[in-house]
Amino acid sequence: MNANSFKKILVPLDGSKYSEKALERACEFAKFFDSKLVLIYVIEKSIPLNFLDRKEYLKILQKFGNKILDNANSSLLKQGITPKIILKDGNIVNEIEKAAKKEKCDLIIVGNKGLGSVTRFLLGSVSNKLAQSSSCSVMIVK
Amino acid sequence: MNANSFKKILVPLDGSKYSEKALERACEFAKFFDSKLVLIYVIEKSIPLNFLDRKEYLKILQKFGNKILDNANSSLLKQGITPKIILKDGNIVNEIEKAAKKEKCDLIIVGNKGLGSVTRFLLGSVSNKLAQSSSCSVMIVK
Repeated sequence: MNANSFKKILVPLDGSKYSEKALERACEFAKFFDSKLVLIYVIEKSIPLNFLDRKEYLKILQKFGNKILDNANSSLLKQGITPKIILKDGNIVNEIEKAAKKEKCDLIIVGNKGLGSVTRFLLGSVSNKLAQSSSCSVMIVK
Repeated sequence: MNANSFKKILVPLDGSKYSEKALERACEFAKFFDSKLVLIYVIEKSIPLNFLDRKEYLKILQKFGNKILDNANSSLLKQGITPKIILKDGNIVNEIEKAAKKEKCDLIIVGNKGLGSVTRFLLGSVSNKLAQSSSCSVMIVK
């Protein structure tokens, strides 16, 4: 059955325990509401870093992102859930919002902290920005 | 069945269409997750108002709050849901947080706008403040 307001849910992942908790909640939604899940990892491109070659740094992040998404995918498949997987680069909040619109998601489930922790001081809290600016509902998991 | 993370949900009401939408979502949770619902209306005491006698003003708000809670209660009872009803006065965000803790809620479902609209310029957005400071998860319904 799918006659509810949570047909498609976007879950931004960043490898933190906070995003893992968000994914757990999303799984509950998928099981109870039969929601489709879309997992996204955004490679943050706007970090000003000097200690590593930029290209090298982005390569490492891409590898990390792929690993996070692979792990989440395997974990969901074991639970009978087949998610859609998205890897993007750019500004975290912008890319999450773009994906939510493009995929026509009804809800974003996001961790309270952790996401974009490296760029926290530049971006402020990603979850709060999303809660303010997103066109769809946002659940902030504590 | 109740083996999930949404056993008890707090829904702050203020009579706006936004809080009505939040209540609709909460009903979906109650039906799917068998969650208990707690409805709260907070009489905002910190509004500096000159155009009305303070006591008179608080009386009007109390009447309004009771009506909002009564209407929501009737609507839920018709759907087979028996909510707990709370009417408080004080600071909106503080009272919602206190109630969430006291009632051991797992989730607050709140409208994106509307709540505390009169005091918007003083308090900032109640939903955003809750999302930041609440100890339990918060869903902001758009």
